[in-house]
Amino acid sequence: MSIVPKITLVGAGPGDPELITLKGIKALESADVILYDALANEELLNYAPVHALKVCVGKRAGKHSLRQENIEKLMVKLAFEKGHVVRLKGGDPYVFGRGHEELEHIQSFGIAVSVVPGISSAIAVPASQNIPVTRRDLSESFWVVTATTKRGTFAQDIRLAAASSATVIILMGLGKLREIVDAFQTLGKGDQSVMIVQNGTLPNEKCVVSSINHIEKLVQEKNIGTPAVIVVGDVVNLHPSIAQQIQATAV
Amino acid sequence: MSIVPKITLVGAGPGDPELITLKGIKALESADVILYDALANEELLNYAPVHALKVCVGKRAGKHSLRQENIEKLMVKLAFEKGHVVRLKGGDPYVFGRGHEELEHIQSFGIAVSVVPGISSAIAVPASQNIPVTRRDLSESFWVVTATTKRGTFAQDIRLAAASSATVIILMGLGKLREIVDAFQTLGKGDQSVMIVQNGTLPNEKCVVSSINHIEKLVQEKNIGTPAVIVVGDVVNLHPSIAQQIQATAV
Repeated sequence: MSIVPKITLVGAGPGDPELITLKGIKALESADVILYDALANEELLNYAPVHALKVCVGKRAGKHSLRQENIEKLMVKLAFEKGHVVRLKGGDPYVFGRGHEELEHIQSFGIAVSVVPGISSAIAVPASQNIPVTRRDLSESFWVVTATTKRGTFAQDIRLAAASSATVIILMGLGKLREIVDAFQTLGKGDQSVMIVQNGTLPNEKCVVSSINHIEKLVQEKNIGTPAVIVVGDVVNLHPSIAQQIQATAV
Repeated sequence: MSIVPKITLVGAGPGDPELITLKGIKALESADVILYDALANEELLNYAPVHALKVCVGKRAGKHSLRQENIEKLMVKLAFEKGHVVRLKGGDPYVFGRGHEELEHIQSFGIAVSVVPGISSAIAVPASQNIPVTRRDLSESFWVVTATTKRGTFAQDIRLAAASSATVIILMGLGKLREIVDAFQTLGKGDQSVMIVQNGTLPNEKCVVSSINHIEKLVQEKNIGTPAVIVVGDVVNLHPSIAQQIQATAV
């Protein structure tokens, strides 16, 4: 039987294993190989057939276990050797996931490739604290940025975002919290509400809510670490911990 | 047997019925009532038990069949009468979906409520044309706006977005295409690439790709209608129809 190489890039969602799509599950069920990120929930591997090879190629802040180019090479090699490779990525493959670079690499070998979207942490992690990214009368747009960019455009974009009425959502931003705080303070927005959620949608989810001026201290006190999503904007005022304060002040 | 009222807001995803989450399916399977939007795929109703009441409360551009406040009232009434109500919404409940308003209304009656995220059209519809919202060297952030706002902040936000290096994604924007084109032209960005996708992720998906300067004519010629997602930014240059042109010009 000849092997037909095929690769599917699948978004694993934000962490909760029930937040994968049906299409993602079907891809896993027909996999011969799964290459999974550290941020993809390992419980999802149970959908794969027993014979399937499972390889962790995980990347986490500060711990790059396998370089991007090596992941791409391995994916292609295993597709030719084994058949259907599922590349299981945290969140959505096309949101800061380098998914499109992987797609182009795969296509350059003439291998059939498809992409299954995942629930993005950018939207679902705020939602797990019941904070919507948009809300009438508070915010009618949202801007998703990463603080870890290749081109260094972060500084400019974060200033424009801070000047806008958009909800600003920052992924992979905890290490740049100083610069983020500074961008908002420079615009006189030190009182703006901010929320930081670690391990969103998982049982060990942690959350701090404060103002731009006080968030750094709180992050230290509560020992907030990665992976974390940072949300800045008036929608954060909907969080119970703030809503109660606002109500108390009004009385 | 006494009835325990309970409401779950579920994101149905962008259209393809396989792009709902496992958690969403489980909610549907335990529903006594489903209130669904016109943009939610009706095939998803098959997950509901036979006894479940299915009510279309759908909203589409130009056709508001049931007013928001009436949907909220109906939801609460049916929860007290029947038990578990699933409110099935197109895309994600917290992305321009008024989901948080519904949540607050439900909570004011002391009814237990939970929210299941959905795949947002903002990310998955560009992906269905293999356009990532972010891509190293092209765009390291994305801004999601709606052209149909209550406060009329669209004009300001779209100008800031157009001035940024972000990929700009506009939902419910086809009716305001003139204003969108104008915002980019005013900034000298008439040559910027733009893609408009109708019925993204569905079998009848249609797509046009052009520059800001020429997109209006093309939309008319190709008869593009709602629901549509508009994407503006350099990532659109990755679309095969443009990538070939760019390559041909370079030769």
